[in-house]
Amino acid sequence: MKIAMVGLGRMGANMVRRLLRDGHECVVHDISADAVAALVGEGAEAASSLEDLVSRLEAPRTVWLMLPAAITGGTVKNLLDVLKPGDAIVDGGNSSYRDDIDRAAAAAAYDVDYVDCGTSGGVWGLDRGYCLMIGGPDRAVTRLDPVFASLAPGVDAAARTPGRHGAVSQAEQGYLHCGPPGAGHFVKMVHNGVEYALMAAYAEGLNIIRGAGVGRRATGADAETAPLREPQYYPFDTIDLGEVAEVWRRGSVIGSWLLDLTAQALLADPDLEQFTGRVSDSGEGRWTSIAAIEEGVPAPLLTAALYSRFASRGSEVFADKVQSAQRREFGGHIERSAE
Amino acid sequence: MKIAMVGLGRMGANMVRRLLRDGHECVVHDISADAVAALVGEGAEAASSLEDLVSRLEAPRTVWLMLPAAITGGTVKNLLDVLKPGDAIVDGGNSSYRDDIDRAAAAAAYDVDYVDCGTSGGVWGLDRGYCLMIGGPDRAVTRLDPVFASLAPGVDAAARTPGRHGAVSQAEQGYLHCGPPGAGHFVKMVHNGVEYALMAAYAEGLNIIRGAGVGRRATGADAETAPLREPQYYPFDTIDLGEVAEVWRRGSVIGSWLLDLTAQALLADPDLEQFTGRVSDSGEGRWTSIAAIEEGVPAPLLTAALYSRFASRGSEVFADKVQSAQRREFGGHIERSAE
Amino acid sequence: MKIAMVGLGRMGANMVRRLLRDGHECVVHDISADAVAALVGEGAEAASSLEDLVSRLEAPRTVWLMLPAAITGGTVKNLLDVLKPGDAIVDGGNSSYRDDIDRAAAAAAYDVDYVDCGTSGGVWGLDRGYCLMIGGPDRAVTRLDPVFASLAPGVDAAARTPGRHGAVSQAEQGYLHCGPPGAGHFVKMVHNGVEYALMAAYAEGLNIIRGAGVGRRATGADAETAPLREPQYYPFDTIDLGEVAEVWRRGSVIGSWLLDLTAQALLADPDLEQFTGRVSDSGEGRWTSIAAIEEGVPAPLLTAALYSRFASRGSEVFADKVQSAQRREFGGHIERSAE
Amino acid sequence: MKIAMVGLGRMGANMVRRLLRDGHECVVHDISADAVAALVGEGAEAASSLEDLVSRLEAPRTVWLMLPAAITGGTVKNLLDVLKPGDAIVDGGNSSYRDDIDRAAAAAAYDVDYVDCGTSGGVWGLDRGYCLMIGGPDRAVTRLDPVFASLAPGVDAAARTPGRHGAVSQAEQGYLHCGPPGAGHFVKMVHNGVEYALMAAYAEGLNIIRGAGVGRRATGADAETAPLREPQYYPFDTIDLGEVAEVWRRGSVIGSWLLDLTAQALLADPDLEQFTGRVSDSGEGRWTSIAAIEEGVPAPLLTAALYSRFASRGSEVFADKVQSAQRREFGGHIERSAE
Repeated sequence: MKIAMVGLGRMGANMVRRLLRDGHECVVHDISADAVAALVGEGAEAASSLEDLVSRLEAPRTVWLMLPAAITGGTVKNLLDVLKPGDAIVDGGNSSYRDDIDRAAAAAAYDVDYVDCGTSGGVWGLDRGYCLMIGGPDRAVTRLDPVFASLAPGVDAAARTPGRHGAVSQAEQGYLHCGPPGAGHFVKMVHNGVEYALMAAYAEGLNIIRGAGVGRRATGADAETAPLREPQYYPFDTIDLGEVAEVWRRGSVIGSWLLDLTAQALLADPDLEQFTGRVSDSGEGRWTSIAAIEEGVPAPLLTAALYSRFASRGSEVFADKVQSAQRREFGGHIERSAE
Repeated sequence: MKIAMVGLGRMGANMVRRLLRDGHECVVHDISADAVAALVGEGAEAASSLEDLVSRLEAPRTVWLMLPAAITGGTVKNLLDVLKPGDAIVDGGNSSYRDDIDRAAAAAAYDVDYVDCGTSGGVWGLDRGYCLMIGGPDRAVTRLDPVFASLAPGVDAAARTPGRHGAVSQAEQGYLHCGPPGAGHFVKMVHNGVEYALMAAYAEGLNIIRGAGVGRRATGADAETAPLREPQYYPFDTIDLGEVAEVWRRGSVIGSWLLDLTAQALLADPDLEQFTGRVSDSGEGRWTSIAAIEEGVPAPLLTAALYSRFASRGSEVFADKVQSAQRREFGGHIERSAE
Repeated sequence: MKIAMVGLGRMGANMVRRLLRDGHECVVHDISADAVAALVGEGAEAASSLEDLVSRLEAPRTVWLMLPAAITGGTVKNLLDVLKPGDAIVDGGNSSYRDDIDRAAAAAAYDVDYVDCGTSGGVWGLDRGYCLMIGGPDRAVTRLDPVFASLAPGVDAAARTPGRHGAVSQAEQGYLHCGPPGAGHFVKMVHNGVEYALMAAYAEGLNIIRGAGVGRRATGADAETAPLREPQYYPFDTIDLGEVAEVWRRGSVIGSWLLDLTAQALLADPDLEQFTGRVSDSGEGRWTSIAAIEEGVPAPLLTAALYSRFASRGSEVFADKVQSAQRREFGGHIERSAE
Repeated sequence: MKIAMVGLGRMGANMVRRLLRDGHECVVHDISADAVAALVGEGAEAASSLEDLVSRLEAPRTVWLMLPAAITGGTVKNLLDVLKPGDAIVDGGNSSYRDDIDRAAAAAAYDVDYVDCGTSGGVWGLDRGYCLMIGGPDRAVTRLDPVFASLAPGVDAAARTPGRHGAVSQAEQGYLHCGPPGAGHFVKMVHNGVEYALMAAYAEGLNIIRGAGVGRRATGADAETAPLREPQYYPFDTIDLGEVAEVWRRGSVIGSWLLDLTAQALLADPDLEQFTGRVSDSGEGRWTSIAAIEEGVPAPLLTAALYSRFASRGSEVFADKVQSAQRREFGGHIERSAE
């Protein structure tokens, strides 16, 4: 199949490569001429503008967007002016599913199919394939099946779930038509919310092991800080975190690809000294917690993971100051300085 | 009544003053000669050692301890060697209720009554009185009633609860015999756990109001950070936090003494610039969450307040670094530096 | 001053009464003829429709709405058709501050001032006064000052904050012009978020005290449940929660009006047997957490309070089932039935 | 090597089988004669008592315990009376690492080595091998290397971590000598704490997807419940959770064995109707949060996972009732009944 790809960053470029490898044709466009040139060297066809890009496709056309969330909306608008009825736009970036719902309604007025495709796989997707969570009208999603199948990891990426027999389903190949417009990014959003929590869970556990030698450190006896009642139970100041992450990779119920990556990072830099600990968040984690709240469904872990990212960037400091101020007011407590 | 007070810090000295004012006699002891001298000047009797102190009392004797938690245990041990059957030790400090249970059993072997008395009131207690949560054997607690009554705020400190009639109970005067040894510090422990949560609740709320102008601040559009979808809903960059704390003091269900103190602190230093935000914790908050866990009772807010204090002192940084490392491994994300 | 009040429920009716008491004139309207008749009997003037209501006021007119959030929007729309330039609408209900921002923009097109007034005070407001958090254009807010002053508790409702001198500010009387349209409901929203957390903090603490006798209850020894390591530290099965709430009211830093009410409820029904524990939430708590998330500011306690309300109504059950299913899959654990 | 196994439940019996398969000899003991007989039929040697068991081994002896935590302590005591200097006890059960530290000190007085071995693998361990986290003296741990190697999954259970070269380490085979006595169970304890959080993270995410059709359900408009502001964004009432779990298994960063098992459970019983949602906890999760608290290290997710298990068993109900009571007191709110 021949499709167009707009946005050739980390994700978009590798997705083009994976499509080319599997025999598809790709028209590519990006603000970076270098990015375009690189892919042309690998077999893609360059387009100089959205109009040019659309002219290089045959009806029904498909334009796949891999753009920053802030830019996608304008591009969709521009595309709707140059696409024809029956064509399709696929947003494979990190848009809010709410924008999908709004944009799909706008596209429907042009009889253009709007498909949202949550895409997981990161820098590893080129080789491992991408996990695709898809929303949108059946017409386009069905037509694009060969594209999704090429991008997805395929059934061999994991052992078949016991109880599944016969023909291999989409989900077993690593892509899923989740529902109407927005459903794909909704499922991807929750996916990322879960991802934040899994990451934080390992991080907390490792941090607790790291602190297990606190009983060996002298602490002062004063009215402000209670002494550790039983310091003899915190003597572990030599546990090797990298080895712990490694041993958990085999035979344990907490094994995962994320743990594999954690073991790898700790092997390369046991104290993670190259990091300061400012953890970014890119939208989906926030939207997941907002969805939980609006649904009236509790999500204490997912939200705690999000809040720990916020706090890692300093946004809790004023709340801490309020508490220091309160302590001084009612107890005359002077704020301690960092040791 | 004549009692002895050991430990003349912020709390102990003022408690002696409040007892003297109400006609009690106090023998006092402290490692600081200045602290002793100050109270002798106000009518107390000095003791040069525990033995001396005990010799100045008549049976049944009462020695009240207001010492740092780390020192209390040793002092109790020493006192048991010099007290006589029927005497009483009161621990009014911030001991763990578990130590009370152990110490009460040790004291019982000497037929000495061990009374634990959780004491709230801080630097304000001299004038406002102290809220006393008491555990221990009836014999001593009953005998010490006049002392507790003098230290407590008295019934006029709050309006009578509708439905309470007739004689004023202990609790209505601000002191309560909660149960057997340890019960007093247990209730005080939970009291402090609740206190941490109340403090953090106000702090979080004020911090959210403080951030309500985020829609007016320009944010970059890139693949790492999702733009605020509706910045028009975050235009409030001029709300005066001190005035907000003040207005909440009247007519609102969230009015409290803690809020009064918060309003006071924000009036004096609107941006709380004199604080860095390192919030100490003195044991009870930790023990409260541990009790919740061992009882199998959820305490999400109390524990969240505790964890935010831990994080305010930097102990979460390694966990944050783990997450930055994971993000780099699977997504090639470079950690952002502070703006 | 003469103003109109639309919506004579619990809040609206008492606000009319408080205004009448202070010498204001009130035109009232409600779908319930009984509610209107009751207030007419106390000196209010009845209006049969919005048109009628507006005709009974003189320019610049003020119509105050105390309506359920779902109905306010339509009423504002209808009012804009009958009001004149220079008039004002006050929304004193529980609207989202986002609706205020949208409605204020719509009203501005008619040169009608839109004022949002977060109102705290509940069933007690008639006697205690209402805490008012106000957003909107200066023109209307300044003009309505006498109305706000009559509704608010007044300066005597709390001791003056040390450091405040001279003329009494609005905030000290219990009302505050927080900022532009939406600012009032924004501050009221956060106020309620804080309220949820304060409530949950006391509730958690009392629940921990209630569980402190767990060491006295026999528990089975099997591979599924670890025995309590030190049951001797959980012997407290006789602590009286009502007395604890009472003692905390005097001399303690956790005293508050909310605690007063808690003590009252526990006095009347010590085991709270008349309640099942389904806790409603009325919007502001949700919006507060959403604001925290969109601002990138952590609010772990406020959100935990909200989630515990969600869970109290059963919405976490499916997540629990997922965990029971996981436990069976990897560990062969059979789900326990309730004891 | 010849060792003894005491406790032939789900875990112990399969560990014997795995050892026998690999050429070790096993003396077995259990209170269930059937359990003993089954393993004798597979090549194990029966012992009728601890004395008998010890007599069937040659010095230095090794007795491995796989017993419920409540029984392990007494058995260790009895064994110390019959073992000889240089022998070893391995506790492979779910003991608290604190008990290990105490017991290792007691054993050291007999010159018996006490080894704690946290064992993960559940019902799958027989085939997949067990992840072993080991604490104790070098003498015994080194001697027992062949036993650990047979029980562990081996290096092929996971791809080698990039950056690891040369000889395969213990951790790469799935077992690790973490440190002195207690270190094994400490690391296993944290492992289980992480496990609870991973489970809850998936559960929360799936529950949010399950609730994504809330916009299609009619909700009443009244003063108690705010209407969903934008119901159009919650139209997803047909997303298939089992298919979502399946698609996440391939190409996604949240793939894990736990997710595999979740997909399996949802395939067999899409609504998990066979479960009621009461989630047990077996000690380690509690101890992990307690360790975090005593170390002063925040663990919001691990503790939230624990608390959600507590709440799943009803222990939060009284706290909910307190909040319902508070709402009635200040707002006159009547508690809603379940729909």
